[in-house]
Amino acid sequence: MTRGAVARDLDTLLDDVLLESIALGREHAPVFGPNDVPLYDVLAYHLGFANKRFEPRRLDAGKRIRPRLCVLACEAAGGAMSYAIHAAAAIELLHNFTLLHDDIQDQSPLRRHRPTVWRLWGVPQAINAGDAMFSLAHLALNRAVEAGANSSTVLSLSTELHRTTLRIVEGQVLDVGFEARDDVTSGEYLTMVTGKTAAICRYACWAGAMLADASEAARDAFAGFGLALGIGFQLRDDLLGVWGDQAATGKAEADDIRRRKKSLPIIVVWERASATDRTLLRELYAKPELDQSDIARVLQLMAHYEAQAAVQEQVSAWHARALEALSDAHAAEPARTMLLNLVRSMESRRA
Amino acid sequence: MTRGAVARDLDTLLDDVLLESIALGREHAPVFGPNDVPLYDVLAYHLGFANKRFEPRRLDAGKRIRPRLCVLACEAAGGAMSYAIHAAAAIELLHNFTLLHDDIQDQSPLRRHRPTVWRLWGVPQAINAGDAMFSLAHLALNRAVEAGANSSTVLSLSTELHRTTLRIVEGQVLDVGFEARDDVTSGEYLTMVTGKTAAICRYACWAGAMLADASEAARDAFAGFGLALGIGFQLRDDLLGVWGDQAATGKAEADDIRRRKKSLPIIVVWERASATDRTLLRELYAKPELDQSDIARVLQLMAHYEAQAAVQEQVSAWHARALEALSDAHAAEPARTMLLNLVRSMESRRA
Repeated sequence: MTRGAVARDLDTLLDDVLLESIALGREHAPVFGPNDVPLYDVLAYHLGFANKRFEPRRLDAGKRIRPRLCVLACEAAGGAMSYAIHAAAAIELLHNFTLLHDDIQDQSPLRRHRPTVWRLWGVPQAINAGDAMFSLAHLALNRAVEAGANSSTVLSLSTELHRTTLRIVEGQVLDVGFEARDDVTSGEYLTMVTGKTAAICRYACWAGAMLADASEAARDAFAGFGLALGIGFQLRDDLLGVWGDQAATGKAEADDIRRRKKSLPIIVVWERASATDRTLLRELYAKPELDQSDIARVLQLMAHYEAQAAVQEQVSAWHARALEALSDAHAAEPARTMLLNLVRSMESRRA
Repeated sequence: MTRGAVARDLDTLLDDVLLESIALGREHAPVFGPNDVPLYDVLAYHLGFANKRFEPRRLDAGKRIRPRLCVLACEAAGGAMSYAIHAAAAIELLHNFTLLHDDIQDQSPLRRHRPTVWRLWGVPQAINAGDAMFSLAHLALNRAVEAGANSSTVLSLSTELHRTTLRIVEGQVLDVGFEARDDVTSGEYLTMVTGKTAAICRYACWAGAMLADASEAARDAFAGFGLALGIGFQLRDDLLGVWGDQAATGKAEADDIRRRKKSLPIIVVWERASATDRTLLRELYAKPELDQSDIARVLQLMAHYEAQAAVQEQVSAWHARALEALSDAHAAEPARTMLLNLVRSMESRRA
C-alpha cells in the first residue's frame, strides 16, 4: 500500500472512532434544550465535524500527527493498525482537550482557521468542553480491550497517559508563566517544550509499541523517537510562528511576535543580544501592544542575531536524534519508511 | 469502633493517600523556579495541606462526604476500608478538580474560607491546576491494583469514573447556561443537579460496592442510594445558600440571591409567582448587582411563596428514597448504621 493510501485509511478510520466517541458520550447525556449549549455538538465543531451552527461538515481537523505516530509505531513494532486505533483516537482527543484549554489561556481567537470555542460560547463553557474531551479521550483508550488488548495493558496505557498529561500541564504552567518574564533561558524553554508538546508524541510512539507487544528496549527506543520528534516539531512551529507564511499556517504573519510569545527565536535573540539591544527588546515587549514598526524592529534584531538559522539548526539536531532512536527501535517496513518520511517532511514543513 | 473513631481513621488515611498522590505527581516534574507557579504546591494549597505561602498546614479540607460514602459502601457490602481507599482518594481528587474549574466559572472568590486558586494565581493557572488534579485522581484510582483489585475491575472503575465526569460536566454546562435564563423549570433544575452533584455520589457508592465484589443487584442499590443522597445533599445546599448562617457555611448570608444563582428556592418562587411578582423578580434579576433592599425583597417573595418549606420537603423526599435504596442493598453493620446516621445528619445540616 502506498503511503498516501495508508494515510487516507487511517484518517477515515480515525474519523469513525472519533465520531463514535462523541456518540458514546452523548448516549446518556440529558437532552439539551434550545437555550442550552449542546456540549457534544460543540466538541464536534472543535474537532472539525460540524460548523458553528452544528451542521455536519468535514472541516480542517489539524495535522493529526500524534495518532499517526501511534499507529505507525505500532505497525513498525509488528502490530496492526487495529491494535492501536483506540489509543490513537484517545491521543487525538487528549491533544484536543489541551487545545481547548490552551486557546482560553492564550486568548487565541482562531484555531484551524475557525473561531475558537471560548470565543463562540464563552470561557466557562470552553472549560467544560475541554473537561468533557479529556474524559472522552480516556473512554476511547479504555475501549482498546474491545480490540483484544488485555486489561492490564490498557491499565498501563491509562496510567502512562495520565502521567503524560501531568507533563503537558507542567509544560503549560511554565509557558503561561514565561509570558510575564523576559529572562527565560533556552534551557528553561526546552524543559517547557518537552512537557507541553513532546510528552504526548513520546506517549504516542510508546503506546503504539506497547500495543504491538514490543520488548521494553523497543518501547524505550520508540518513546525516545517520539520525544525527539516532538521537540523538533515544536521548534519548527516556533520558526513558523515568526517567519511562516500566513496562507500556509492560517496564522497572521509574525504572529508570535505580535502576541509577544516567549518562543525560541526571541529567546535566542535575548541570549545573544548586546546590552543596548536587550534594553530595546525589553522596552518593546513591555508595550501593551506591538504595532507594525515594533514588529519590524524585532524582526531586524532576529535577523541580526541569526535567530532563524539557530532555531533551524536545533530542529535538525532533534530530528537527527529521532532518526537515531528509530534505528535503535529496529522498526519493520513499510512503517519504518513512513516514519522516516514523516521526520523528513517535518524538517522543512511550512504549515 | 465508634463512628467518630472510624471517621478519624478514614480522614488520616485519606490525608496520607492524597499527600502521596501529590508526591507521586511531583516525582517526575521539572524543578519549578522562583519565577514559576509551583503546580503541586498549588494543588496542596487547594486541598488544605498548605497555606498560600506553601507552608505545610492542616486547613479546612471540606466535608469529604464522597470518599466517606465510597468507603462506607464498600464496608456495607462486605469489603474493608483498604479495598476502597484508592478509589475514595480518586473521588475526592476528582471532586476537587471540578471545584477548581467551577470556581473560575462562577468567579467565586472564596472556597473553604480561603481565596480560590484563580484569585491567587489567575485563571490560566487555575485551569492548569484543575487539569492536573483530574489526572492525579485517575492515577490514584489506577493504584487500586496495588491494594489487590484486579486490572479488569479497576478498568471498569476507570471507565465509569469517566462516564461520571461526563455527567458532571453536562450538569455544569446546564448550570452555566441557567445563569442567563429566567425560565428554568424545577424539572430542568433536577436534571442539572443529578449530573453536577449526584452523579459522583452515585459513583462513590457504586465503586465501593464494586470493590467489595458485591452482586450486580447490590451495586445497583448502592448506586441508587448515592444518587438520591446526592440530590438531597444539593437541595439542602441550595437551602443553606439562601437561609444558611454565615458563621456555619462560610458564605455570605443570602449569598445565592446576591449572586443571582438559579437554585431551587428561586425556581420555586418563579413557578408559583403571580404575573406581577414575576415581573418584579425579572426586574430584580436583570440588575447588574443586587443591593440589600433588593435581597430583602427577594427574601420576602420566598417567604410569601413558602419556598423554604418546599425545598426542605424535597430534601426529605430524596433522603427517604436514599433510605429505601439502602434497605434494598442489604447493607452490613456497622457501616449500615453509619450510612443511616449520615443521611439523618444531612437532613438538617447547617454547614
